[in-house]
Amino acid sequence: MSENTPDTATVLLARIERHEVSIQAFSSYDPVRLRHDAGNAPKGPLSGLSVGVKDIIDTAYYPTAHGSPIYAGHHTPNDAACVTQLKAAGALCVGKTVTTEFAFFRDGPTVNPYDFSRTPGGSSSGSAAAVGAGMIDIGLASQTAASLTRPASYCGVVGFKPSYGRYAGAGIKGLAPSFDTLGTITPDVKTAVLADSVLKGPVPTASTVKSAVPKRVGVCRTPWWNQAEDSTRMALQKAGACLGGETTVEDVDLSVFKAAADLHVTIMSYEACQALGWEYAEQRALLSSQIVSLIEAGRAIDYATYRQALAEADRLRAQIVDVFTRYDLLLAPAAPGEAPKKEDGTGSPIFSRIWTLLRLPTVTLPGFTGVNGLPVGIQLLGAFGEDESLLDYATWAETLFPARPIPSICVQDTGHE
Amino acid sequence: MSENTPDTATVLLARIERHEVSIQAFSSYDPVRLRHDAGNAPKGPLSGLSVGVKDIIDTAYYPTAHGSPIYAGHHTPNDAACVTQLKAAGALCVGKTVTTEFAFFRDGPTVNPYDFSRTPGGSSSGSAAAVGAGMIDIGLASQTAASLTRPASYCGVVGFKPSYGRYAGAGIKGLAPSFDTLGTITPDVKTAVLADSVLKGPVPTASTVKSAVPKRVGVCRTPWWNQAEDSTRMALQKAGACLGGETTVEDVDLSVFKAAADLHVTIMSYEACQALGWEYAEQRALLSSQIVSLIEAGRAIDYATYRQALAEADRLRAQIVDVFTRYDLLLAPAAPGEAPKKEDGTGSPIFSRIWTLLRLPTVTLPGFTGVNGLPVGIQLLGAFGEDESLLDYATWAETLFPARPIPSICVQDTGHE
Repeated sequence: MSENTPDTATVLLARIERHEVSIQAFSSYDPVRLRHDAGNAPKGPLSGLSVGVKDIIDTAYYPTAHGSPIYAGHHTPNDAACVTQLKAAGALCVGKTVTTEFAFFRDGPTVNPYDFSRTPGGSSSGSAAAVGAGMIDIGLASQTAASLTRPASYCGVVGFKPSYGRYAGAGIKGLAPSFDTLGTITPDVKTAVLADSVLKGPVPTASTVKSAVPKRVGVCRTPWWNQAEDSTRMALQKAGACLGGETTVEDVDLSVFKAAADLHVTIMSYEACQALGWEYAEQRALLSSQIVSLIEAGRAIDYATYRQALAEADRLRAQIVDVFTRYDLLLAPAAPGEAPKKEDGTGSPIFSRIWTLLRLPTVTLPGFTGVNGLPVGIQLLGAFGEDESLLDYATWAETLFPARPIPSICVQDTGHE
Repeated sequence: MSENTPDTATVLLARIERHEVSIQAFSSYDPVRLRHDAGNAPKGPLSGLSVGVKDIIDTAYYPTAHGSPIYAGHHTPNDAACVTQLKAAGALCVGKTVTTEFAFFRDGPTVNPYDFSRTPGGSSSGSAAAVGAGMIDIGLASQTAASLTRPASYCGVVGFKPSYGRYAGAGIKGLAPSFDTLGTITPDVKTAVLADSVLKGPVPTASTVKSAVPKRVGVCRTPWWNQAEDSTRMALQKAGACLGGETTVEDVDLSVFKAAADLHVTIMSYEACQALGWEYAEQRALLSSQIVSLIEAGRAIDYATYRQALAEADRLRAQIVDVFTRYDLLLAPAAPGEAPKKEDGTGSPIFSRIWTLLRLPTVTLPGFTGVNGLPVGIQLLGAFGEDESLLDYATWAETLFPARPIPSICVQDTGHE
């Protein structure tokens, strides 16, 4: 059934092992299993592509530890829905990628492929770093605040967080169900589109995504622009300039959405303290101080405040619909700047809270570099549910943005200089 | 810390063991564990109350088998969020209650406490039967189509399915995430309100629910009235008559919502075939023909059809808001009639698909009986998010409806005749 050759597993393993000792992107992987799977995988649209599975996503073969000592060595009987779909489409799951603790802030060992002293970002740390270093083709990732967009930006790769609910979440540990969204990290838009054709339903369907030119592009500095560093300020300006040929590019004022960040924090805290209720009640000594703070912030919020935040979020979702009657595509910062030093944490989620709250699809594109020569991504945003159209525009924009910089550790792999 | 006495566990166990051999409501329970828990439970608003946990809800102590041989003996490390909250509030979890296979149609051994030859309904079979027979105070239940309302109706108990999203779903096996809703089955509204004060947030808060009289009540025969049997027709008429004192009670035409049932089936099938993707791919021989049919129906639906159904559901949700500007409360059938014979399955979900699609809170009240003298419940429905107000009206309506009939097997327990 498989169209893989005995070499397939060897080649995929070599890609991982070339860099894993320095990047530490994987919480587990198993060469013996990979060789077995390569010989037995069905033929499908993802044949020959390797997938790394963020370690909050259930896998029957590999342990699923959620980045927490509470779940060290924890096995589930089942694969998550997304893993089942990818495997049925011929992809080879090569292992589990490092996540921060319960997809929040406490980081794992993974480092940034562009500079080992820097964070790969969180919480989808391992998936972003592994794709950034060329170790895998598709990294499964998820976002509750900025957990996909920010590591994609820091690791110079493409991050696709689809509209809320587009990909099935069965078998994924939740943090805040109003926001939790499964997505992908890939080297390019084409691979994200290929994965989308498999993940958006039970049966793979050929994608209709093509390159398309938006008429009007809105550039969103956002109400948090004062937190943008020079690297991000320059990248957003350059990105707008890259797209402004036959397309109108103009600034969009989002000041009426200023409440979005605080609303996001309120809803996320209230939901997370329930999602992690057992861990807090029974295993508190094994939780980080960051996650305990999140939980305790949530426990201090009353139900009326939470309900009001949900209602206000719904109003903002209705309001952003208007913006998309004026613009086909929005551009926005993906992170405040380049990846911080690893000891300073996984970076600020401030530039994604609004978009996660609004549940919009977003593609983070690489191509720009900051003051230290490290990658800086830019987010492209589409209207809710218009994922295909956003991917059309991203396909076009990718050709106008500079090529993603190759990490120096990979120059010998590709022959680039 | 506990305010339970050594007798607490003995009394709770006696309630279970008096009927369990005939009802078979539990998939697992453990007297030794119950005695241990009773001695160690914190004092709280639910002290002394016993809880049965539907077997799609994770519990660290008891296995969680989802009503499927695939998960026989399956243990999770954690309790679900709802279980953690109930235990922290002093409730004693006495065991796991029987669910149909993955909360769909294939039933377990549980029988109806009013007539052992009848179904208790599904999928929350064990929770409804155990509360109906007086074995427990609170049955955790869930609904994706009619899995809480219908067994509540058949077992002569109160079913509260809150607004979609009101109770945290972490640690519950999903079937269709657009609909999956956690709720409770209790002997009376007061107990549902008590459980609500604990389940609606991370920290119990005193309820403000009180009896309130609606100005206008709408009676919904619904577009599926031709499927209502005499038992249900009479119960709905009597229910309207019970409430019509100072309150205006009139018929509401819901014919513009006729598409709701088919939309519900489309969305549920598409999502369920992904939620159970691993089971279908890897364990198909252990699935029932009913669940395989559901999955295969879902796999035959294309993404555009699913998206269109979601959009249409959103439109209907907006449309029902108008109905609640005219009526404070709606009445509707809870099931086509009395509980069917056990060999005929767990009953039709037709009268709940619309309300689950619309995500409205619903309280099923007992009190009426059908042509065979078996219980027939009536649904009370409120506007989305207005759960407190619905519980206010339900508190009032409960005093006007006839008292729930006591199952003959329980007459000796209560001293009733």
